[in-house]
Amino acid sequence: MGLLEHIETPADLRDLPQSQLNALADEIRQLLIQKVSATGGHLGPNLGVVELTIALHYIFNSPDDPIIFDTSHQSYVHKILTGRGDQFDTLRKKGGLSGYTSRAESEHDWTESSHASAALSYADGLAKAKELTGRADEHVVAVVGDGALTGGMCWEALNNIAAGNRNVVIVVNDNGRSYSPTIGGLANNLTKLRDQLAAIRIQPGYDEVMESGKKTLKSMGWVGERTFDALHALKEGVKYQVVPTQMFSDLGMKYIGPVEGHDVKALLNALKYAKRYDGPLIVHVVTEKGHGFAPAVNNIADQMHSTGVIDPVTGESLAHSEPGWTAAFTEELLRAGHDRDDIVAITAAMAGPTGLQPFAEQFPERFFDVGIAEQHAVTSAAGMALGGLHPVVAVYSTFLNRAFDQLLMDAGLLRQPVTIVLDRAGVTGSDGASHNGVWDMAISSIVPGVRIAAPRDTERLREEFREAIAVDDGPTIVRFPKGSAGADLPAVRTVGGVDVLAEPSGEAGESEVDVLLVAVGAFAASALEIAEAVRGDGIRVTVVDPRWVVPVNPALCDLAVGADMVVVYEDGVIRGGVGSAAAEAFAAAEVDTPVRHLAFPDLFPLHGSRSEILQEYGLDPQSAAQQVREWAARLAD
Amino acid sequence: MGLLEHIETPADLRDLPQSQLNALADEIRQLLIQKVSATGGHLGPNLGVVELTIALHYIFNSPDDPIIFDTSHQSYVHKILTGRGDQFDTLRKKGGLSGYTSRAESEHDWTESSHASAALSYADGLAKAKELTGRADEHVVAVVGDGALTGGMCWEALNNIAAGNRNVVIVVNDNGRSYSPTIGGLANNLTKLRDQLAAIRIQPGYDEVMESGKKTLKSMGWVGERTFDALHALKEGVKYQVVPTQMFSDLGMKYIGPVEGHDVKALLNALKYAKRYDGPLIVHVVTEKGHGFAPAVNNIADQMHSTGVIDPVTGESLAHSEPGWTAAFTEELLRAGHDRDDIVAITAAMAGPTGLQPFAEQFPERFFDVGIAEQHAVTSAAGMALGGLHPVVAVYSTFLNRAFDQLLMDAGLLRQPVTIVLDRAGVTGSDGASHNGVWDMAISSIVPGVRIAAPRDTERLREEFREAIAVDDGPTIVRFPKGSAGADLPAVRTVGGVDVLAEPSGEAGESEVDVLLVAVGAFAASALEIAEAVRGDGIRVTVVDPRWVVPVNPALCDLAVGADMVVVYEDGVIRGGVGSAAAEAFAAAEVDTPVRHLAFPDLFPLHGSRSEILQEYGLDPQSAAQQVREWAARLAD
Repeated sequence: MGLLEHIETPADLRDLPQSQLNALADEIRQLLIQKVSATGGHLGPNLGVVELTIALHYIFNSPDDPIIFDTSHQSYVHKILTGRGDQFDTLRKKGGLSGYTSRAESEHDWTESSHASAALSYADGLAKAKELTGRADEHVVAVVGDGALTGGMCWEALNNIAAGNRNVVIVVNDNGRSYSPTIGGLANNLTKLRDQLAAIRIQPGYDEVMESGKKTLKSMGWVGERTFDALHALKEGVKYQVVPTQMFSDLGMKYIGPVEGHDVKALLNALKYAKRYDGPLIVHVVTEKGHGFAPAVNNIADQMHSTGVIDPVTGESLAHSEPGWTAAFTEELLRAGHDRDDIVAITAAMAGPTGLQPFAEQFPERFFDVGIAEQHAVTSAAGMALGGLHPVVAVYSTFLNRAFDQLLMDAGLLRQPVTIVLDRAGVTGSDGASHNGVWDMAISSIVPGVRIAAPRDTERLREEFREAIAVDDGPTIVRFPKGSAGADLPAVRTVGGVDVLAEPSGEAGESEVDVLLVAVGAFAASALEIAEAVRGDGIRVTVVDPRWVVPVNPALCDLAVGADMVVVYEDGVIRGGVGSAAAEAFAAAEVDTPVRHLAFPDLFPLHGSRSEILQEYGLDPQSAAQQVREWAARLAD
Repeated sequence: MGLLEHIETPADLRDLPQSQLNALADEIRQLLIQKVSATGGHLGPNLGVVELTIALHYIFNSPDDPIIFDTSHQSYVHKILTGRGDQFDTLRKKGGLSGYTSRAESEHDWTESSHASAALSYADGLAKAKELTGRADEHVVAVVGDGALTGGMCWEALNNIAAGNRNVVIVVNDNGRSYSPTIGGLANNLTKLRDQLAAIRIQPGYDEVMESGKKTLKSMGWVGERTFDALHALKEGVKYQVVPTQMFSDLGMKYIGPVEGHDVKALLNALKYAKRYDGPLIVHVVTEKGHGFAPAVNNIADQMHSTGVIDPVTGESLAHSEPGWTAAFTEELLRAGHDRDDIVAITAAMAGPTGLQPFAEQFPERFFDVGIAEQHAVTSAAGMALGGLHPVVAVYSTFLNRAFDQLLMDAGLLRQPVTIVLDRAGVTGSDGASHNGVWDMAISSIVPGVRIAAPRDTERLREEFREAIAVDDGPTIVRFPKGSAGADLPAVRTVGGVDVLAEPSGEAGESEVDVLLVAVGAFAASALEIAEAVRGDGIRVTVVDPRWVVPVNPALCDLAVGADMVVVYEDGVIRGGVGSAAAEAFAAAEVDTPVRHLAFPDLFPLHGSRSEILQEYGLDPQSAAQQVREWAARLAD
């Protein structure tokens, strides 16, 4: 670790001679492999941007020149170069280093959300602020993946950035993939450009290409006052050329590339040029996900986009993984695909993680990857439903946010049978604030006519998914958490569609408090623990699972009438959640049994393990049981 | 009305010889001017698409070839050609013709939402469905404005449509405007193309241009197997040419245009070509908003985008309009702009209707129109806030839906001081389901740390806006309804920030029910009427306005403790609304006073006047008072 130990800030990096940067890249790569293999994390994306990140910090002056990493799961190298290399043992652990940029960690981190395609909008805003506050000479750099460019926010931002003349440098980190290979017309175009780079690499007549590039540059006449600099850059041996793409330049956006993303000298030259250039510029950098670590490069599925604990040499997974929620969904979807021709499946660039890959392989003509484009996923699904199909849109819970208007206005208003399957619902743990799926029930329950199922176990997931795709007059949602599923929890009996999971035995004592504990989804197992824990404390608990949590089942109102207190326990936020919907239904029925909420307060849950986070908010069974005891005691007073 | 009276369906239209279509266009234009001037509506946009809509229905076979109108406020001509011309006296009235496409009205209407940029996604979905159901030969036509192309959904859809080979015809209805002139790099490019059309029009050497177009067509080699047809079309005198834009073709999207949008023959030829062409195609049509009606064409502000009742000859407004909410906001914003350099204003293509125009004129360097791009509006605002500014984003309540994720993750998570001003909040009336602003409080209250103000009168609007821009640690929202504002409603007294507007006098009788009536925003005046109406019916009503409705003011909990029943009366949905948030706060404080909701149920409110809609849902003061009486009586039992 010879070079790294002298780098605490980007200024230290800039003190190194260029000749040592390749050696530094090797050190960083080794650090990443060693540390991330032990903690898990986004190994592939970070191995892909080692040279790029070094070059960015070598040329630009962070934080005065903000560097905004889109999604920011590729910010590990940036963290290493900004004084956080020694904290990687704590990566994604509670109280440790975030897996994303974090403003609490460093002045070099500007944003925190992991949702894709937002970086260009931030950059546009920051550049406008610089202009208005006398700092127009500084640059704002946005690093965005080719996958994220399929998201509509990027188009909106490009349209605005292009119309201005501010110093926004958009670095397209093109590895040809989001999780899976990037799709669509845009990707086809980028591939053509990448192929040109490949051609340059293999052709012996490299100098001629450079000469031709120089001529093109002149003939296109777009370098304006900076022609000298540009030509000067070419003389220095810049390995990019002006290629005949007009997709961006027709927007008024200047473009240079493709640049070989693992060639430090090429990167430095391109970025130097970008810094000298007046106005917005796209720099197209071609990188390889997992670069320098054979097990990642050779991983066809996702090039170790995000990995658990692995062997640092072979890349073999060292974590034991049990069949989980996603696998049960996959099986049920395949069955539906066999049974019904009208079932189609849609992913927003995540066929693997959402469990759609087997469906894609068995029914390729009925599978659609729309790119990182949740808005289009939902509205094109509504269009397919208008055409007589029953689409299943599988996305992570947190990404449904992006398609709220589409769910409401395009699927909901038209009452189209679109089934949305939300994986990673509830607390997701180590991915941090913006990956938690705690808002899905609150937002989707606003949609008139929507039906939302929160299965408590994989058996119910299968049942409720089958029920969802049988609905033909409006959108349905089935949401379940990340990870392995527990044992199936059979119902004791059923009351009007509400499953009763546990009931008190014997006659009620006079001073005992009757509690109706409504367990939402995967919290059912913990709800049973709570019931067990408070037994004999003057509390009689009935645990029920409504299965379909929205609209609120009238049977739940009937059950509430007989209780002294209703507690709703859910893996989501209190604000507008299922407990809140239940309380509204009770109010409408003029059932005034007191309601209490065991759910997330108005905060962004931080990163940590799932159980640590539940404990933090008093939602683990022990804390929750204690809370129920206190509520019951005060109510009985 | 010679021709129109024979047209009940598009098939009747196709029976007409081409030579009569110009006369038909004249008739339709006269009908539009006569009828819409009497009812109000989207006059300008519809006058702009008379010839285009005739040509679409003449060439394509609706409904087998679905024609999807983006936003669909430009579907009046379509309605006339599909048997609804005689219903225009009822336009936008309760039980009458919708101002948008409506599936209940006609099998030729496929969608209903008025939110822009969604048509291409629907079209992609419908075309995929056609392919999977053996109807691949049919076409799906999407009509989208140049303004709507600035929305990210269009980019997502284009990226997907381009990657397929389905028969999607995208008609870009380019009038250079959304409400105001379209902005951004895209608009600059389209303007260049339009200028070429203008050049063609004025040059005598028209034939040579056609010849050159033919050569270009060949040299670009993109017409493939259909070259013959294309050349054939050219021989017929097609007035479009292949222009050197690659913005779309680099996506793999073929493009023809620009086509003169008021020349029926040119349109028919272009659309004939589009129908013969295999695969997705963009047809760029240049139209003029308000075409054929001088008062509209000459209206610089918005070319009569949407108008009230006007004189059918002069275009003068015949409606009396009083100073309303928007005007008060405008004044307060101007004041803030003068006082503080860090105040900037952002609109999503609606500077006029949201009241930003005067700010734009006085502070042009601090005003940003981002296009129909609400996502970018909010995230670029967050970026500006990161750069030290305080942005004010002014949008219609219903369009905030599009930026929910951005509000949550980009402004909320980073606690950035962005003030969102929501005009047209609550029931908007004649614009129908998708324009109602009844969801804003439900969705935005989910954002941790957000503060939401619902001013009850313009005086409070001014105060609360000033308070909002004084907040420096998170997003703030100020929401108010459409139209003229009533009289100011002073507070009797204030309890911990909650304004008490009316209190019962004298001592409570023994059997009287004490009601705390929480009035949200502009419902305050009606709340006072309710209190008055139920006086003496065994009910004592205290009317309060919390001013800031989220987070719930603890003083409201204290007031609830002393009441027998809390009624929350709000111009929004029950599901997740302010009443629901209040109930959650009461539950957290273990205050178990029964809560009742006077708000909108889980339905999409239909179109009609504001008062008709309120009555429909029992929210007018008389119905609401009766409801309160019944609730109180049953509670007293």
